[in-house]
Amino acid sequence: MPRQVTAFSNPLVKQVRGLRDKKNRRREGLFIAEGLRILTEAREAGFLPEILFFTAGGDRHPLLERLIAETEAAGGEAIETTADILHKLSGKDNPQTVLGVYRAFDIGLERIDRAQADLWIVAQALRDPGNLGTILRTGDAVGAGGLILVDECVDPFSVEAVRATMGALFTQKIATASWAEFLAWLRAGRGELIGTSLNATRDYQEPRYRKPAFILVGNEAQGLPAAYEAECDMLVKVPMLGRADSLNAAVATAVMAYEVINQWRHAGNI
Amino acid sequence: MPRQVTAFSNPLVKQVRGLRDKKNRRREGLFIAEGLRILTEAREAGFLPEILFFTAGGDRHPLLERLIAETEAAGGEAIETTADILHKLSGKDNPQTVLGVYRAFDIGLERIDRAQADLWIVAQALRDPGNLGTILRTGDAVGAGGLILVDECVDPFSVEAVRATMGALFTQKIATASWAEFLAWLRAGRGELIGTSLNATRDYQEPRYRKPAFILVGNEAQGLPAAYEAECDMLVKVPMLGRADSLNAAVATAVMAYEVINQWRHAGNI
Repeated sequence: MPRQVTAFSNPLVKQVRGLRDKKNRRREGLFIAEGLRILTEAREAGFLPEILFFTAGGDRHPLLERLIAETEAAGGEAIETTADILHKLSGKDNPQTVLGVYRAFDIGLERIDRAQADLWIVAQALRDPGNLGTILRTGDAVGAGGLILVDECVDPFSVEAVRATMGALFTQKIATASWAEFLAWLRAGRGELIGTSLNATRDYQEPRYRKPAFILVGNEAQGLPAAYEAECDMLVKVPMLGRADSLNAAVATAVMAYEVINQWRHAGNI
Repeated sequence: MPRQVTAFSNPLVKQVRGLRDKKNRRREGLFIAEGLRILTEAREAGFLPEILFFTAGGDRHPLLERLIAETEAAGGEAIETTADILHKLSGKDNPQTVLGVYRAFDIGLERIDRAQADLWIVAQALRDPGNLGTILRTGDAVGAGGLILVDECVDPFSVEAVRATMGALFTQKIATASWAEFLAWLRAGRGELIGTSLNATRDYQEPRYRKPAFILVGNEAQGLPAAYEAECDMLVKVPMLGRADSLNAAVATAVMAYEVINQWRHAGNI
């Protein structure tokens, strides 16, 4: 049976609200996801929250009923609360009516099994949580295995990043590594590293991409360091016809990833 | 010669800060853009600010010197100020050292000349300023003529949207219209309306796209209304291989737009 929490002073409210800070997320190994859609995606991918908050009143959505039942069956706690408290927890003006607290994934590179997918995305020094979340969402759409974060990237478990994934966070493996660690891991197995760069002269539609493909995308403002570009098996450029000669990092990743899977689709390999 | 403004109580500071609100932007017909890169893109596209704020001290970047000179030559005002005031104006924690106040563009549909470009983007009920800005940035990259905003969309002149365009705002025409107005305008000339929809069965790489092409993208959460889809000349779907079956709206727009221009590139038509 769900218990009720309606006081702002409740220690649990304070604890969960604290998860909006990275250092608290790290210390507790927990993060927040919001919204019935995202929590349902999580459930379907095999992830249930440790704590499930939902607002009281009215008929409950069948998907919410199922989340409550499965959360409690798995040993988690379901808590009926108020819209005001959800607002406080999520920090959003129009909070969702459901919020889950999840155990953070193990993000060791050694947990990544490259045989599980033909396509992987690698992001270097990505700074914007919306971009990171959008790249995870794209990763799901293109059937990628996951996202490897190289150098100092924004936290994939931040509220903004999780929100932007629209649930795809739970379908993608995530790993963090230094560039040296990633390179050593990559070269210990099969796979081509495909860098996207404004400095490249080769059109991104020219090469025939092989499996497994690792798409490497650089920092939003600086792009990839030259030394990293030099390690790529191929360096390609998405053509730009306008003045500004730049694309949003998540957009460039998606355009590149769709080219790779379109080639495989046309060859009958997907 | 630039004048100095260092007091928070200066009426100009209050007025410009007010431009973060849509109703003030509408009333005054002005908006804010930040950062040397974006302001330089604007200048190169023929737009100078009415008021240019920049921080004092140190050697000035040559591009800033040029902005100051051209702004003053065009009758605008250049104002040397403090980092604290720029922070107050921009609302950002790490404000840029340059901020411009620009006259808002005329956004009447009748000002759009479809002969000026082969590709146009049409967004319906778009809600997120980051998505809108990213779509404008993509529009520049694919050589689109501009963005037509149908139904109630987020303000393209909001600080967040302008920031996400990375300057492409100034290279793209922008119009707003009701769906009925847009349809009447579209059908009075040449052009195919290409809707992207999860409901479509036709793969987005199947049709041969003709010029001019109008790519129609729907609201982030709901997609296009069925009645709008029915008006499209073709309805196509970007394939998704994952669980979540969704893409960010700006990402979907970019993947679609690159397919259209890639077809034209391969036919030697760009």
